[in-house]
Amino acid sequence: MNETPKTWLVYLAGEIHSDWRDRIEHGVDEAGLPVELSGPVTDHGASDDCGVAILGAEQSSFWKDRKGAGINAIRTRTMIEESDLVVVRFGEKYKQWNAAFDAGYAAALGKPLVILHPEEHDHALKEVDAAANAVAREPEQVVEILRYVIRGQLS
Amino acid sequence: MNETPKTWLVYLAGEIHSDWRDRIEHGVDEAGLPVELSGPVTDHGASDDCGVAILGAEQSSFWKDRKGAGINAIRTRTMIEESDLVVVRFGEKYKQWNAAFDAGYAAALGKPLVILHPEEHDHALKEVDAAANAVAREPEQVVEILRYVIRGQLS
Amino acid sequence: MNETPKTWLVYLAGEIHSDWRDRIEHGVDEAGLPVELSGPVTDHGASDDCGVAILGAEQSSFWKDRKGAGINAIRTRTMIEESDLVVVRFGEKYKQWNAAFDAGYAAALGKPLVILHPEEHDHALKEVDAAANAVAREPEQVVEILRYVIRGQLS
Amino acid sequence: MNETPKTWLVYLAGEIHSDWRDRIEHGVDEAGLPVELSGPVTDHGASDDCGVAILGAEQSSFWKDRKGAGINAIRTRTMIEESDLVVVRFGEKYKQWNAAFDAGYAAALGKPLVILHPEEHDHALKEVDAAANAVAREPEQVVEILRYVIRGQLS
Amino acid sequence: MNETPKTWLVYLAGEIHSDWRDRIEHGVDEAGLPVELSGPVTDHGASDDCGVAILGAEQSSFWKDRKGAGINAIRTRTMIEESDLVVVRFGEKYKQWNAAFDAGYAAALGKPLVILHPEEHDHALKEVDAAANAVAREPEQVVEILRYVIRGQLS
Amino acid sequence: MNETPKTWLVYLAGEIHSDWRDRIEHGVDEAGLPVELSGPVTDHGASDDCGVAILGAEQSSFWKDRKGAGINAIRTRTMIEESDLVVVRFGEKYKQWNAAFDAGYAAALGKPLVILHPEEHDHALKEVDAAANAVAREPEQVVEILRYVIRGQLS
Amino acid sequence: MNETPKTWLVYLAGEIHSDWRDRIEHGVDEAGLPVELSGPVTDHGASDDCGVAILGAEQSSFWKDRKGAGINAIRTRTMIEESDLVVVRFGEKYKQWNAAFDAGYAAALGKPLVILHPEEHDHALKEVDAAANAVAREPEQVVEILRYVIRGQLS
Amino acid sequence: MNETPKTWLVYLAGEIHSDWRDRIEHGVDEAGLPVELSGPVTDHGASDDCGVAILGAEQSSFWKDRKGAGINAIRTRTMIEESDLVVVRFGEKYKQWNAAFDAGYAAALGKPLVILHPEEHDHALKEVDAAANAVAREPEQVVEILRYVIRGQLS
Repeated sequence: MNETPKTWLVYLAGEIHSDWRDRIEHGVDEAGLPVELSGPVTDHGASDDCGVAILGAEQSSFWKDRKGAGINAIRTRTMIEESDLVVVRFGEKYKQWNAAFDAGYAAALGKPLVILHPEEHDHALKEVDAAANAVAREPEQVVEILRYVIRGQLS
Repeated sequence: MNETPKTWLVYLAGEIHSDWRDRIEHGVDEAGLPVELSGPVTDHGASDDCGVAILGAEQSSFWKDRKGAGINAIRTRTMIEESDLVVVRFGEKYKQWNAAFDAGYAAALGKPLVILHPEEHDHALKEVDAAANAVAREPEQVVEILRYVIRGQLS
Repeated sequence: MNETPKTWLVYLAGEIHSDWRDRIEHGVDEAGLPVELSGPVTDHGASDDCGVAILGAEQSSFWKDRKGAGINAIRTRTMIEESDLVVVRFGEKYKQWNAAFDAGYAAALGKPLVILHPEEHDHALKEVDAAANAVAREPEQVVEILRYVIRGQLS
Repeated sequence: MNETPKTWLVYLAGEIHSDWRDRIEHGVDEAGLPVELSGPVTDHGASDDCGVAILGAEQSSFWKDRKGAGINAIRTRTMIEESDLVVVRFGEKYKQWNAAFDAGYAAALGKPLVILHPEEHDHALKEVDAAANAVAREPEQVVEILRYVIRGQLS
Repeated sequence: MNETPKTWLVYLAGEIHSDWRDRIEHGVDEAGLPVELSGPVTDHGASDDCGVAILGAEQSSFWKDRKGAGINAIRTRTMIEESDLVVVRFGEKYKQWNAAFDAGYAAALGKPLVILHPEEHDHALKEVDAAANAVAREPEQVVEILRYVIRGQLS
Repeated sequence: MNETPKTWLVYLAGEIHSDWRDRIEHGVDEAGLPVELSGPVTDHGASDDCGVAILGAEQSSFWKDRKGAGINAIRTRTMIEESDLVVVRFGEKYKQWNAAFDAGYAAALGKPLVILHPEEHDHALKEVDAAANAVAREPEQVVEILRYVIRGQLS
Repeated sequence: MNETPKTWLVYLAGEIHSDWRDRIEHGVDEAGLPVELSGPVTDHGASDDCGVAILGAEQSSFWKDRKGAGINAIRTRTMIEESDLVVVRFGEKYKQWNAAFDAGYAAALGKPLVILHPEEHDHALKEVDAAANAVAREPEQVVEILRYVIRGQLS
Repeated sequence: MNETPKTWLVYLAGEIHSDWRDRIEHGVDEAGLPVELSGPVTDHGASDDCGVAILGAEQSSFWKDRKGAGINAIRTRTMIEESDLVVVRFGEKYKQWNAAFDAGYAAALGKPLVILHPEEHDHALKEVDAAANAVAREPEQVVEILRYVIRGQLS
């Protein structure tokens, strides 16, 4: 009974420019945790172009973006709704409004949330952090949270 | 993590007189996508007669239709509610109010929607299209959407 | 206790080319029923143009339609969701996919539905009718339904 | 029946450094629209300090922020959940992750959304915009949307 | 704070052949309780005939009943869903499957339930009673429950 | 795509004195349909005694019944909530308020319903029947409905 | 727009032996806040006896308690479900499992929560506190929270 | 059909100082019941320290507790929400507010509940017991309930 009798679906939202998803995947594998990871399409070019590549070109960049965002939302919304835990990482750069949008979306669905960000964002993210179960600094801490939640073990 | 860790249930609603469902099924098979397709009963005669064939004849065509529609709804509502994605095709002919009803039903449930129709219906379908994640013209585009959503790949 | 202690909000969806809404409004007024009616914007031109008129012109008619449909949906979805009863009229002409979409949307929300249409559409609307509490032919029958539901009186 | 029989509750989320809320309030008043506006506490200092001012000081700024954010969420979540329409403004400066979080929160609740931002943010906000009923540039356009939605009138 | 700051909507379902609704109404009036009562149409003839009277005659009694039941459900479902408390009375005679259906419907919606029936039905109603907040024998006990729930007073 | 890609969970509620459940089970087996059947505990004695047998004797029959009903509800509510289809049979004898309660419970959850009863109960069950997708007379018709819904075949 | 356009319904759960409810009521009145307070029946004797007083005596104290608890739940569940904010006070004495039950109930409904308790209970209440928007020590702090949430003012 | 076609997920909440979970696990194993048990982390030290051990030390015990409680809630809420049955045990000692909070949380989600406690707590737990399907005294009775619910057998 110490280990929960389930596979945990964990959605990794947010920043796509560093290797944080790989580090979590690596840690989960190493620990042999019953976890399935998902996330948005992290190929930036494909993510930007998918709408016009599949459905046809657009003259205006606004509608090109709209077509792509509509398709990306099929994946992101579905996977967030199916998740047991949503992890959202905010990196050092860029607006990252997608990350905050996904955090709000997950919060309204009542999903457990872990927010991952450097200390410098503490104040700017205070409302987001207050909606979370935990605020972590490093991807490895997310692995430790999963190990503890699933097995009741502290490493 | 590029491929979503799930089988996608896709409901194919609407027009039953062309081979569009077969073309999607073919494309999905060829690509080896983890997709399970469902849809309404497409045997037009059986769909019209099921009520009276199973539950007994009716004198009025109105109640004959009602009996059949009640049974068909067991299948259509259940499969729409279980779907991860609902595709609705509007063909060139007929009223196709069923198709629009199913689109509205799916939209109210918050299901991702892809609408498939020729350009000539653009204006008549504008409210339906606005509720959708994507508007496609050809069944093969639906396969491309699925490939991208599931694998993050553009072909 | 014969009269229900509430004001009934009734949404009148569908066909906008005949005077059926006025006939219901007239009947409700005459009977002094505690009913508030609403519906979509019935000024066809305004409904088509609202997106570009408010948010700026579009080159493609597809995106012009999208802009308008987005704004119209603020009104139609909100009013349907707040309604106690949704009446959907299908007229003799046009595709009227909006009407069927609204019926499906209301059905998925569990709203009581009355469908109003001529007999000639019986077969084409069988699935829609099967989701309804009543199928009426004339607007005055909707008034009679309201009188009975609210006061328990048959005229 | 042209005017919807209700008072519309509109939540104005996001940027708190320009006068955009006043401009919407002014426009709504001038038009005499049946609209009640709400929003977060826009006194920046009070919003930052409310937690420690009411519940007692904290040594760490992280927990000071947490205390304040918990109290602010009582207001923001409640008002968003009660709203008929949520407007989210992104300004030229700052991270504004709160704004995006509120947009995601509102989207997951199925609230109609209007996003208000300058063109320069189009690409960064594409996923947020795709969840919206309308993307506007100026506060006055929000007033025009409300006028049309409520009265069916284009000015 | 002893009296709850609200008007309580109480739906009185079930048996329509005795004066139990009047006795509750009388007791509520006498006590001056902030209660609004509703219930099904209790004119048995009107309730049976409403479908064909409004929507046109039927040859089969089965479909005559269906037409009427569809219209009655607009009232009963709406009022049950809006209620704060549902009281269901089972009398000495008749099948009263409607009463049990309404009790099940209300239970699934999470409505507080009071079941009112003579002792002789105790065993037959055990599953229904187990879903209820209280089992009463006399209508006056329902008034006492309301007085206590609303004012905290035992008479 | 003709066969739905799922196992259907079907709950058989109501009368426990005839062999109707066996007849459905037999028909489903013979047809090889992907259906899993469940229902209440049909051992009448065990169903009446379970409360006191497990939790200790009671002096009053009312509380004995309550203890048993509480435990039975764990099974019946859970299985109804998990079902894709609820079939409710009303037999010739007894009050069968449980059956009607379960039908109301399932209806409020939006479950597809098939009601099974002899013609003599038509009028008494009219409100229940109006909430159903189909009204059948014989268990074998339920098998035919399942065959059609799952495979699109009329036998 | 600084003051929220609504009356706030605040439920005061928990300890009934001190004057904390009066102190909140006094503070709210003094500040003239648009707040309506409710809570359980605080007359301890009436709360214990209501079941048998209204519905008839019981021999066993267990079932006497059950009868009373069923009636009390009509009030407490209804008022919690209608509240905008739930305040739960834990006093120095007694088990107060009701208080913790109500906190869990409100948390699962997504209600904003304020927990009010002396420091000595911090560790025992850590899971409850973690579900709350704020942890306060004195009733006057609840008034200050309401003033800030409603008016954006710190006193 | 006597045995329900499912694996039952049972969450064991509450007291962590006696062997009651082991006794249920033993009984379930012995009977070969299709049951999967889960519960909170029962290693008291780990449960208290998990927050600071994973996310970094805190000076104040209040925030140390908060960090831990946030992580524990990922497990407890998720497992309660996935459960088919929640069993809550109250022991002889300690405040056990967590247990009551979990019971309230489960009740609001509509989960079937079994409460397990010695007779001495009857009065203090009356509101909690009234929300439950059964009140048991010994863990073995929970096993008997499961055997009956799943197989329809009394031992």
